[in-house]
Amino acid sequence: MTRERQNSYFVPGFRFSGISGGIKKDGARDLGLIQSDTIANVAGVFTTNRVKAAPVLLDMERIGSGRCRGILVNSGNANACTGERGLENARLLADLVADELGIDRELVLLASTGVIGQPLPMDRIVKKIPKLVQELSPYGISSLAEAIMTTDTRPKIEFETVTVGGRDIRLGGVAKGAGMIRPRMATMLSFIVSDVSIELDALRATTREGAGRTFNRITIDGDTSTNDTLLVLANGRADNFRIKASSPDLAPFQEKLWSVMDRLSKQLIEDAEGATKFVEIHVKGAQTEHDALQVAFSIAHSPLVKTAFFGEDLNWGRILCAAGYSGVTIEPNRLDLFLEGVRIVEDGVGCGKEAETQATEAIKKRSFTVTLDLHLGSEAASVVTSDLSYDYVKINGSYRS
Amino acid sequence: MTRERQNSYFVPGFRFSGISGGIKKDGARDLGLIQSDTIANVAGVFTTNRVKAAPVLLDMERIGSGRCRGILVNSGNANACTGERGLENARLLADLVADELGIDRELVLLASTGVIGQPLPMDRIVKKIPKLVQELSPYGISSLAEAIMTTDTRPKIEFETVTVGGRDIRLGGVAKGAGMIRPRMATMLSFIVSDVSIELDALRATTREGAGRTFNRITIDGDTSTNDTLLVLANGRADNFRIKASSPDLAPFQEKLWSVMDRLSKQLIEDAEGATKFVEIHVKGAQTEHDALQVAFSIAHSPLVKTAFFGEDLNWGRILCAAGYSGVTIEPNRLDLFLEGVRIVEDGVGCGKEAETQATEAIKKRSFTVTLDLHLGSEAASVVTSDLSYDYVKINGSYRS
Repeated sequence: MTRERQNSYFVPGFRFSGISGGIKKDGARDLGLIQSDTIANVAGVFTTNRVKAAPVLLDMERIGSGRCRGILVNSGNANACTGERGLENARLLADLVADELGIDRELVLLASTGVIGQPLPMDRIVKKIPKLVQELSPYGISSLAEAIMTTDTRPKIEFETVTVGGRDIRLGGVAKGAGMIRPRMATMLSFIVSDVSIELDALRATTREGAGRTFNRITIDGDTSTNDTLLVLANGRADNFRIKASSPDLAPFQEKLWSVMDRLSKQLIEDAEGATKFVEIHVKGAQTEHDALQVAFSIAHSPLVKTAFFGEDLNWGRILCAAGYSGVTIEPNRLDLFLEGVRIVEDGVGCGKEAETQATEAIKKRSFTVTLDLHLGSEAASVVTSDLSYDYVKINGSYRS
Repeated sequence: MTRERQNSYFVPGFRFSGISGGIKKDGARDLGLIQSDTIANVAGVFTTNRVKAAPVLLDMERIGSGRCRGILVNSGNANACTGERGLENARLLADLVADELGIDRELVLLASTGVIGQPLPMDRIVKKIPKLVQELSPYGISSLAEAIMTTDTRPKIEFETVTVGGRDIRLGGVAKGAGMIRPRMATMLSFIVSDVSIELDALRATTREGAGRTFNRITIDGDTSTNDTLLVLANGRADNFRIKASSPDLAPFQEKLWSVMDRLSKQLIEDAEGATKFVEIHVKGAQTEHDALQVAFSIAHSPLVKTAFFGEDLNWGRILCAAGYSGVTIEPNRLDLFLEGVRIVEDGVGCGKEAETQATEAIKKRSFTVTLDLHLGSEAASVVTSDLSYDYVKINGSYRS
């Protein structure tokens, strides 16, 4: 992103910062802040893991009000499995940020990501809060995006504009996450802000549904984190006629919101730990969308399928095998399998050398689509995943060292 | 195994062979045969995958009779996803073996393992059947154990003897499997023979229960194969008073049968693809045994936990995280975690540096136990698993090349 484009990347009424708070050993940015000049409506989706990090527990307490003026984020330490002390630390940091900003303490939310089970280095963080607030800028979203990175190799930012009821509305979002990524919730950390004016119920509904269609349909390693958090803030600054769940204005806004979510979620897969492949698993001909998703995830989670992608080996038997143990009732003799449009399996049996040779070209690309037709109905669903490489093992075998 | 020990490894009335049938490219043994001199009772457990290989479908048809005189096995080709032709090939091979042995065709069972989706090289296999029968020997179990290997690095054989009703009874078993190993069925291929006299119902019940306690409690990569088969043959040659489900004689026989299954299943983990660690995950304090198993498998399947084991990194947060998303209702603040008896987490919070330093010594061993106490009840269960290493990725990234 050039500086010029960056400067066009602002959302009226929001400011961002990201600095080094001394949590990461290498001195990289690890402390971030989002501030809304006015009270914004907020909707959130959190991890379904029963072991929830302290910031998630605090947010779940506070988000019932639907109001927010600040989000404090840190990377390098998840503040998970830290007990009562972890919760006290989270609350104290939120209070310090609120006081520094001069806002109501209850209006600050938190998110953390990093190593589980270690207390936050409170002494170092506390000292940095004044600086974090001083650095707030309407153009600071890049610094924020950097400050939430862990094993990510690059910051993930998306912007959109849309005209609603004659008013120009802006949307800006960041996300992080390169491992411990699995659906069934809002995966990883993501924060999206907009100057749209929208009723809280409508914001909540569109956030939840959008997460289900985007972040919840990607998977890297099948591990559901303790810290996953998606927060969407809307401050109403665009002064459009307030969107309700029933307004025709919802559709154009929602389309762009989901587009930001979709692009951020795909950036996560593009930057998946050690990934060399970006693969869409499309399952069609299912009796229900739920069945299609279940089969698609079974394929996307199979270590054997993922290593075959890494090895550029068209070992399609592993794909059928993973469909077979997905728990969905399938008819093995009806399965058709396609790689980038080339049919390699028909009625459950391989189509032979020529088709395989053609498809092997496709598997050598960085990005391709695998389509499995169950021939049992008319429902379909896709998930997006990465391969399983040496580097995934390397990154995760020594994460704490 | 020395030649001398091998010679003591026989089971009266059974003969074994294993030769090169030209299926594997490197000319290694890939064709095996077990023959029973008389009609044996047989019990079997097969894969729960909906995509079942041709030999599994044929066995499931035939095993209803409970009678068997021969098992033909091949490695190097799974004969799965091969359609009608695959079934015809399986039937033809069984018929040829039956004719060569001079036995009833319906009494031959089959098993295959190897690449999915390629037709068997029938021309080469058919020519080798006479030799396979000629080579049968009471002492041939090592050759058989070699002939069923795929990515296994060593043959897996176990023997037991037990006295039942004053008669000495022998049990001999082989197994293979180094990847595509996951519970919910009799995992991989295993054949166990005994000269015990036991009623078919009792044999079936003890086989099924034993598989549930042994093969179904190991996991390497969470992939359920299309070909998994466990067959247990009992020919009655020991002439013990026939064991019924209700006889007191069942207990001593069952103990040894399950011991053979248990040792074979642990050999599979010891020889897991690329494995450098052999880890028992023990979950206790659960409300039901099923809950304990579900939590244990969630931990054992987590790529993040497995790579941390590989990296000898005591990243215990990942273990609690995997317990948290297992689907079982747990209380995060009650969790205690032990590594080889060293408590590293108490009430959901880390015990600090000293405990971690002690436990880090344990994680450097090849074999260790992780114990998670949920403090919700009195039920417990264990599963045994391996780590996720570079070599797992290497082996599976290029399996077909």
